[in-house]
Amino acid sequence: MIARLFCWMIAVTGALLSPMAQAEDGYDLWLRYARADQARSADLAAHATAIVAPGNSPTLTAATAELQRGVAGMSGTAPTLSAIVQQGALWLATPASAPALPIRTEGLGNEGYAIRSTQMEGKAVTLIAANSDIGLLHGAYHWLRLAQTGARLDAIDIRSAPRIGLRLLNHWDNLNGTVERGYAGASIWDWWRLPDWKGPRYTDYARANASIGINGTILNNVNAKADSLTAPYIAKAAGLADVFRPYGIKVYLSVKWTAPMELDGLKTADPLDPAVAAWWQAKADEIYRAIPDFGGFLVKANSEGQPGPQDYNRTHADGANMLAAAVKPHGGIVMWRAFVYAHDNPDDRAKQAYTDFKPLDGRFADNVIVQVKNGAIDFQPREPFHPLFGAMPKTPLMMEFQITKEYLGQSTHLTYLGTLFEETLDADTYAKGKGSTVAKVIDGSLDGHELTGIAGVANIGADRDWSGSIFNQADWYAFGRLAWDTSLSAESIAKEWAEMTFSPDPKVVQPVVTMMMGSREAAVDYMTPLGLTHVMDTGHHYGPGPWVSDLARPEWNPVYYHKADANGIGFDRTKTGSDAVSQYAPPVAKMWGNVKTTPERDLLWFHHLSWDHRLRSGETLWDGLVHRYDRGVAYVADMQTRWAALKPHVDAERFAQTQTFLTIQHREALWWRDASIAYFQSLSKRPLPTGSAAPAHDLNWYKAQRFPYAPGHN
Amino acid sequence: MIARLFCWMIAVTGALLSPMAQAEDGYDLWLRYARADQARSADLAAHATAIVAPGNSPTLTAATAELQRGVAGMSGTAPTLSAIVQQGALWLATPASAPALPIRTEGLGNEGYAIRSTQMEGKAVTLIAANSDIGLLHGAYHWLRLAQTGARLDAIDIRSAPRIGLRLLNHWDNLNGTVERGYAGASIWDWWRLPDWKGPRYTDYARANASIGINGTILNNVNAKADSLTAPYIAKAAGLADVFRPYGIKVYLSVKWTAPMELDGLKTADPLDPAVAAWWQAKADEIYRAIPDFGGFLVKANSEGQPGPQDYNRTHADGANMLAAAVKPHGGIVMWRAFVYAHDNPDDRAKQAYTDFKPLDGRFADNVIVQVKNGAIDFQPREPFHPLFGAMPKTPLMMEFQITKEYLGQSTHLTYLGTLFEETLDADTYAKGKGSTVAKVIDGSLDGHELTGIAGVANIGADRDWSGSIFNQADWYAFGRLAWDTSLSAESIAKEWAEMTFSPDPKVVQPVVTMMMGSREAAVDYMTPLGLTHVMDTGHHYGPGPWVSDLARPEWNPVYYHKADANGIGFDRTKTGSDAVSQYAPPVAKMWGNVKTTPERDLLWFHHLSWDHRLRSGETLWDGLVHRYDRGVAYVADMQTRWAALKPHVDAERFAQTQTFLTIQHREALWWRDASIAYFQSLSKRPLPTGSAAPAHDLNWYKAQRFPYAPGHN
Repeated sequence: MIARLFCWMIAVTGALLSPMAQAEDGYDLWLRYARADQARSADLAAHATAIVAPGNSPTLTAATAELQRGVAGMSGTAPTLSAIVQQGALWLATPASAPALPIRTEGLGNEGYAIRSTQMEGKAVTLIAANSDIGLLHGAYHWLRLAQTGARLDAIDIRSAPRIGLRLLNHWDNLNGTVERGYAGASIWDWWRLPDWKGPRYTDYARANASIGINGTILNNVNAKADSLTAPYIAKAAGLADVFRPYGIKVYLSVKWTAPMELDGLKTADPLDPAVAAWWQAKADEIYRAIPDFGGFLVKANSEGQPGPQDYNRTHADGANMLAAAVKPHGGIVMWRAFVYAHDNPDDRAKQAYTDFKPLDGRFADNVIVQVKNGAIDFQPREPFHPLFGAMPKTPLMMEFQITKEYLGQSTHLTYLGTLFEETLDADTYAKGKGSTVAKVIDGSLDGHELTGIAGVANIGADRDWSGSIFNQADWYAFGRLAWDTSLSAESIAKEWAEMTFSPDPKVVQPVVTMMMGSREAAVDYMTPLGLTHVMDTGHHYGPGPWVSDLARPEWNPVYYHKADANGIGFDRTKTGSDAVSQYAPPVAKMWGNVKTTPERDLLWFHHLSWDHRLRSGETLWDGLVHRYDRGVAYVADMQTRWAALKPHVDAERFAQTQTFLTIQHREALWWRDASIAYFQSLSKRPLPTGSAAPAHDLNWYKAQRFPYAPGHN
Repeated sequence: MIARLFCWMIAVTGALLSPMAQAEDGYDLWLRYARADQARSADLAAHATAIVAPGNSPTLTAATAELQRGVAGMSGTAPTLSAIVQQGALWLATPASAPALPIRTEGLGNEGYAIRSTQMEGKAVTLIAANSDIGLLHGAYHWLRLAQTGARLDAIDIRSAPRIGLRLLNHWDNLNGTVERGYAGASIWDWWRLPDWKGPRYTDYARANASIGINGTILNNVNAKADSLTAPYIAKAAGLADVFRPYGIKVYLSVKWTAPMELDGLKTADPLDPAVAAWWQAKADEIYRAIPDFGGFLVKANSEGQPGPQDYNRTHADGANMLAAAVKPHGGIVMWRAFVYAHDNPDDRAKQAYTDFKPLDGRFADNVIVQVKNGAIDFQPREPFHPLFGAMPKTPLMMEFQITKEYLGQSTHLTYLGTLFEETLDADTYAKGKGSTVAKVIDGSLDGHELTGIAGVANIGADRDWSGSIFNQADWYAFGRLAWDTSLSAESIAKEWAEMTFSPDPKVVQPVVTMMMGSREAAVDYMTPLGLTHVMDTGHHYGPGPWVSDLARPEWNPVYYHKADANGIGFDRTKTGSDAVSQYAPPVAKMWGNVKTTPERDLLWFHHLSWDHRLRSGETLWDGLVHRYDRGVAYVADMQTRWAALKPHVDAERFAQTQTFLTIQHREALWWRDASIAYFQSLSKRPLPTGSAAPAHDLNWYKAQRFPYAPGHN
């Protein structure tokens, strides 16, 4: 400990003299702890003269080490560890360590914390209080966030505890090192050399996640291989669990339904077969011997070709409950995904998950939670909230967001997802009347569930900057912050992220936040305006393919989703169509069931309309569609201008990367616009509105584009 | 330039105060420029008071920037650029820039250089002289090597020029980001975001290669996809070429024989079809428009399932010459691989390349060079030199070494390949009498060829340390140094690498060099002693599989190579067997044709012998075999001990990684030993010699091991 501290102190003394010495390659994420200006530096040092901690557990060591590293980076001086509270100390305490704690810790739970500027024996101190070491670690990260974002350090009074219990990353990482829908290089899990070699990156992963409150990670792809449950791979997972444990992060595994057959030759995977249940019980026992705090299983069953209990004429509940019984004695849980749709089901794909799961409400074991994607299709730039939210009051539902941008520009587009997450969490299901937001469904407060969760499909890879670009880091950050506190605004999160990632200087923060806040809407505009959806090209989902109609399953084809022809465009999900609206609570169904009350952002999701349909602006649907494509492209051009002006204020490497990626984004936004217009115009036969340029190429050119090595498509 | 210099100076001032500030993660390779002790630091500063360069071309800028970076790192002060020679200056000059140059540059060619401590107008200076900017860059790196390895800086008198013209890396990198036989993570080529995004790692790649004299890189796998020849991928390759050009590194591409059919629907790929020739001519023209200094093509044809001219009853020469004509007008070359063997050829696989290519001697165009692996099988821990060396006097032959350790422990084993390269280069073909070494064949001196080359299959990947481990970096380094100067010793290279990579302190260098120098022989001992070969497990080649006999092609099976049974073991390649020895010059054939004159290291490569055959030591072949397995394992244990003692002298991260990998290596060396003994003992039925432990498991246990996600096996 002392040796490490010594290194940091020396490092910082050096850094003091060399503000530009280190290339800003993005590896440090929002934990850069960049040197503050002189006044702030002195302020920081005065409010971190020493650190008092109630022990030296691995978690407390992580907390104090992070505080030392942070203060040293920002102020130039690392605070020492002290047994005695002194003026200006950071005082970490629990009720057990300090019985006369001047802060109540009731209500903070096992992960929350309070931070208060207070007095102790006549000395001004900053008290970080919690019921547990993990709570103190979270509090330490909160204080460091305050320190990095220019907050006042002499009048802190904060209480914070998460309302959602499970705040998880889902890694769609394959055992061969590739990442499904990964756009940031190979998997960061070096499965081959685990558990022997546990490189320093695993610790940095844990630090980053702990700093935003993530408390669990599903290590392998939901399209799972049975091998992840073999003894060697359990040992590898245990190696990672050992690294993550001090940071309050549990590991979980995705499991393949037919593992008992593949690994041990069972004749069936029928969940009601006692031999199958015994196999899973023994497997759970084996895992818990290696990982005593193992979190549990995530299951993708009977979905997109994966096997599952329906293969044996059993229900999802039968399957989930059998697995739940296996992990129950160890305190584990099962997360059962509701992302299902069947090739032989002619009904609207948007309805199928509800149809399958709604009847199972109340039939799941108490350690099962059903994991529902934010929308009913598949992580589109915009989707109405999933109809299952609010529809299964007897069943805990957890949210599945996608942080990796499969449908939102992949590695290079700047499309901040905080606004997407916020929009979904704030959506009102009306399940128990007005105010029944999705956030209240998943935090358990609407229906009184104790088991609560939220998952994000990780955008993390072996690229030096973790997420494929600096701005993609903001999506990871925003997911964690909102998972901890769904009441935060996407804008406030963008602001604190920008302050920590670039600089607290408003000259930087203001334009960066402006860019971010409109960026996802811009992608909606240039990709899927007015409620269009899933018009991405086949398989890799990179670029436009609204004309695609030749895929094996109807609901894989873009034409299935937009239903454009000479007369009009859109998917009628009202009573005259698939009646998907009836899956929502009556006020919601009524709103979306009527074209007049449907927000235009959702228009073509719910309605099939004539090209000449009048939008609220008075323009025709066709003209409005084209104008939105134009607007999306223009927004990207605007971001380019804003970013260019930041050149004097951003380090060269990150400036150049972002500038390059904005150039790519602008080119591709134009491509999206042009290809979409070329195709839809071939159906609508309408002229472009005045001022809108014709596509650069003819439709056949766009159809001929091929991307055989597009990333993330395994 | 000035801004960059300023940053370095500041960085160095910081580094001065923070010797341990930077984690040693291996990224800096042998270009760490670590701070020297006070005396050496002063000495360095005194011999680099300023830099005088004859211009500011991109190459000269690279050279002077590297000198500034290096001197700043080692001494704490970056020398300034100066127009005037001053006392203690580093003076870079060409005959054109300084007509009165006090060094002759004749014989240095376009890439060589001379360095001399001399006087200029009464001032002591270090003159680096060359005929070209590239020569000056190489000279700068040489001076930096002297500076890093503690050489005297006041009495330098060096002339150095490469004898081999093409010193190339072959990347077996796929367009999807994987690397065939890669054990260091994904490909460093971010094909998807090229040519827009050219990250800083490409420049560091060029710096590392230029520092050891590598002057070309084949970007894609010899198992090539036709797509690499499409316009988008040519543009991507051009983007890399732009980064590499200032460092004197050309790009080349591997090509797929059937590209004209796959990309443009030609009906044939017959090399004598005029349409095919015209297609390649047009393709070459297209490439050269994008990359004016493009190097040329590398071809794997009619080999392991790849298409080629033999599919049209044409010869390798017909194919190579057609391609050669396409690049000839642009100054390009064709490298045609001789790694061929046919599934329908019952002859000894070791003989087939010679049989195919020897008759073609003299039939290749003058811009074709035939690329021959070091041995006749496939990059084994030890192979006798390939019989084609010396056998095709009318044809330029280039060497193909494998730097990535497909068969030598992959990412984790410490098996320094410098000794393997050295052994092959020094081998005597006797083609023109004694002294006709392989080195003289490939440097063109034996047969008077101007076109000369040497290639190494790269061990480079996106892992932070580039090569999967710190010690694997030495293999890249040694390849480059030997390619530049085949007369260097593997030991001297190991020494300078250790000095730069760890420390010039003899307390570190001596044990590190000792470990390295015996390490490859140890791998031979625990994997394939006494001339055994290709007993690795199927496909991934990770771990032992001497029992494997069920693969489709006979020569893919380990049993084909060792031919062990109850009576004995080994492949008879003498006149009583396959007579492969007759492919060598008579003195060599005679030596290997007689068991008495065959070095024991090659014994079972050439002879099938009774288990009771007496070795020179007097022990039986069986006992000697077991003793060698034991010796290999013991060597690894010895390396563990030596490394453990270095803990006080090596930074924590690199110490821990190497310690962990040595633990893996020891476990796997034991596994190799035990599995091999368990299998061979099941045939020999002989007891183990006294003192040799029985295998830890029975044979079935070893046979049952499975590694479904072993890296590098695409």
